[in-house]
Amino acid sequence: MITASICTIGDEILIGQITDTNSSYIARALNKVGIKVVHMSSCSDSKRDILNTLKRCLRMSEVVITTGGLGPTKDDITKNVLMTLSGSNRMVRSHKQYIIIKNILSARGIQMLDINRQQAYVPENCTVIPNRIGTAPIMQFRFPKEEFGRDNLLFSMPGVPFETEYATNDVISAIQAHYKLNRIFHRTICTFGIAESVLSKKIESWENSLPANLHLAYLPNPVLGVRLRLSIYGISEKEGKEELDKYASTLKAILGDAVYGEGDTNPQTVTGELLLERGATISTAESCTGGYVAHLLTEIPGSSRYFWGSVVSYDNSVKINTLGVSENTVKKYGVVSSQCVKEMAEGVRKRLGTTYSISTSGIAGPGGGTPNKPVGTLWMAASGPKGTVTATIVSKSTRKINIERFAASALDLFRRSLLAGKI
Amino acid sequence: MITASICTIGDEILIGQITDTNSSYIARALNKVGIKVVHMSSCSDSKRDILNTLKRCLRMSEVVITTGGLGPTKDDITKNVLMTLSGSNRMVRSHKQYIIIKNILSARGIQMLDINRQQAYVPENCTVIPNRIGTAPIMQFRFPKEEFGRDNLLFSMPGVPFETEYATNDVISAIQAHYKLNRIFHRTICTFGIAESVLSKKIESWENSLPANLHLAYLPNPVLGVRLRLSIYGISEKEGKEELDKYASTLKAILGDAVYGEGDTNPQTVTGELLLERGATISTAESCTGGYVAHLLTEIPGSSRYFWGSVVSYDNSVKINTLGVSENTVKKYGVVSSQCVKEMAEGVRKRLGTTYSISTSGIAGPGGGTPNKPVGTLWMAASGPKGTVTATIVSKSTRKINIERFAASALDLFRRSLLAGKI
Repeated sequence: MITASICTIGDEILIGQITDTNSSYIARALNKVGIKVVHMSSCSDSKRDILNTLKRCLRMSEVVITTGGLGPTKDDITKNVLMTLSGSNRMVRSHKQYIIIKNILSARGIQMLDINRQQAYVPENCTVIPNRIGTAPIMQFRFPKEEFGRDNLLFSMPGVPFETEYATNDVISAIQAHYKLNRIFHRTICTFGIAESVLSKKIESWENSLPANLHLAYLPNPVLGVRLRLSIYGISEKEGKEELDKYASTLKAILGDAVYGEGDTNPQTVTGELLLERGATISTAESCTGGYVAHLLTEIPGSSRYFWGSVVSYDNSVKINTLGVSENTVKKYGVVSSQCVKEMAEGVRKRLGTTYSISTSGIAGPGGGTPNKPVGTLWMAASGPKGTVTATIVSKSTRKINIERFAASALDLFRRSLLAGKI
Repeated sequence: MITASICTIGDEILIGQITDTNSSYIARALNKVGIKVVHMSSCSDSKRDILNTLKRCLRMSEVVITTGGLGPTKDDITKNVLMTLSGSNRMVRSHKQYIIIKNILSARGIQMLDINRQQAYVPENCTVIPNRIGTAPIMQFRFPKEEFGRDNLLFSMPGVPFETEYATNDVISAIQAHYKLNRIFHRTICTFGIAESVLSKKIESWENSLPANLHLAYLPNPVLGVRLRLSIYGISEKEGKEELDKYASTLKAILGDAVYGEGDTNPQTVTGELLLERGATISTAESCTGGYVAHLLTEIPGSSRYFWGSVVSYDNSVKINTLGVSENTVKKYGVVSSQCVKEMAEGVRKRLGTTYSISTSGIAGPGGGTPNKPVGTLWMAASGPKGTVTATIVSKSTRKINIERFAASALDLFRRSLLAGKI
């Protein structure tokens, strides 16, 4: 299997000023075509660091991809380092890149200076892949097996994320033209409402039955739940798909309604899909989640087709006056109660005139709580034409994570109740 | 200067399913206390890879911080690798962590299983830093100079971002207790509403006047605005403070009311402080921000003292029926207009009975928009006993970033209007 290393270059990454998103973008693209990324690293804008890192990467994997350090300013030295690494004696001008630079600058009304002209120069031992949307060319170097023990290709790409993303396609084509690639296939099953350890116990015998070339990974997240990713290596597309289908169906049968979807989805997207299928609308009545359920729903472009609105009732007066919760309920059961979230959900559904509604009331922390209702307690409800369902959970985390988990749990209660025909 | 390497462990990073945000978080925290990050890397969940990477890191820097691979499931093997690396002969139980695991599970109503119990076991040669918000303990290992050529400390932290962030403080304290660190002092001035390039032009001559040991960093963020961090090195605490005070006052005088605070604050915290000082309350009426202003306000513990609630009016019927926006306004000016946000703000203030209110209506994208009101247009209002102020901005970014910038801009409009005595 062909392997790859990704190396991002720049002081701004090491001081944490920038979160590196290029590496994961490139990794996803490589993975898709069956190249396994074995190493990622970030190094500073220093000649010694870049040189050491690149040599190490060349020994570790066939393909090495670097981003960054190609700007026109003095602190960007990647090109000089690549001149040394490739044993080039001089820089030569790439005519294609020169024309691109000229056109980009003139379109922006900027006069071409020496530092711009220099961007078209590359070490003589490289092949240029023109960068059609930026001034720095993409450079491809080949190192035969004698140099670092592998038949290496090294690519240097600009570090500006949209240029990196654009260049990735061309780089992948160049890799495919050079190596004979194996394929990898993935399938991700998304679950909600079962803790990672319980899940792992539940699927233990299934997990033990997996063949050696099938790998399982657990990906936990407060909003996304626990996602289970199955990866299969070294197999044809047809066989890979069949194997994944087989194991995924068994897994889904074991997990039942804890599975809310597959692949790159999330509870808010699934909620939207369920509503669109039914031509239905939804509203939310939120206390402790403070608008976060509404935020999740409206993160999705086009959510205005099914999301009508929310009443965030942080103060009890809003619960009573705008949502119509009875004062007696508040007095008798408190606002963190099954009775209160039921009245909230029914109240907002009536007031906003939607098919369905979701409500939340709880204690996000860090303060508050009682022995019976500790910090992290959530009561939630989902309501619809067939009735109202309420449920409770306890989340022991920070305020931020509690709010996220509360909101996603309420969406999940809606999904389960709807699919069970209860609301 | 003490140096550090950060190593994130997990197949999910190498296949690009997860963007590593832990490294930049930890790098920023280390930077703040004067530790230089010289290397970042990501490796797979394989014993050989982890071991090689950690050994390399230990040779490169005094401090090595790893995150990930500590879950209860089979694919997480960091702890076994650390057992080998540290030459431990057996695992011992951390009593403190055991109690935490027990409490977390019982609060979630989950039965303790063997795999949970195992999480409390750590290699005998490590010091445990209890993880109060998660089940996996933080482990600290010491390697004397004879082993890797440096007086090394290695820390293994859980990889779930909120646990990593929580653990970082404790790890920094442990580092400070072990090494004699150079002194570094910071002061951060938080601004909102001026673009980075405009800001940089505005403070150019001030920036040129800074002494060599005083460093300025721009930290732009859609919610936090542009924060300007001043750092001073190699100086006594008293002198450092005096120098920072001097340059910070000049900077603040240049920037005027664009400065909303200092240090680790944010627009939502400042909003809360302004309201508490006045014993006042607030509500929001949100269209395009879909509850995100309410979410920002309720992120702050204790916000129930001043935040009463919100009406998220995604559908026009909610604007008209619940907020009392006139149908004529919607017809004549459209919902993305000064007139509409004025009526929304005044409507929610009246309905919820709060001292002040904030409203938003705009086009978050990616679809929608017209030549006059392009995607990214926001109208917002702040209302109070003295009147209502409206304003508009255009944000050219993704839907997610537009929503964040819109929400923070509305909070900033409230701050400026309140302090100017206009609402």
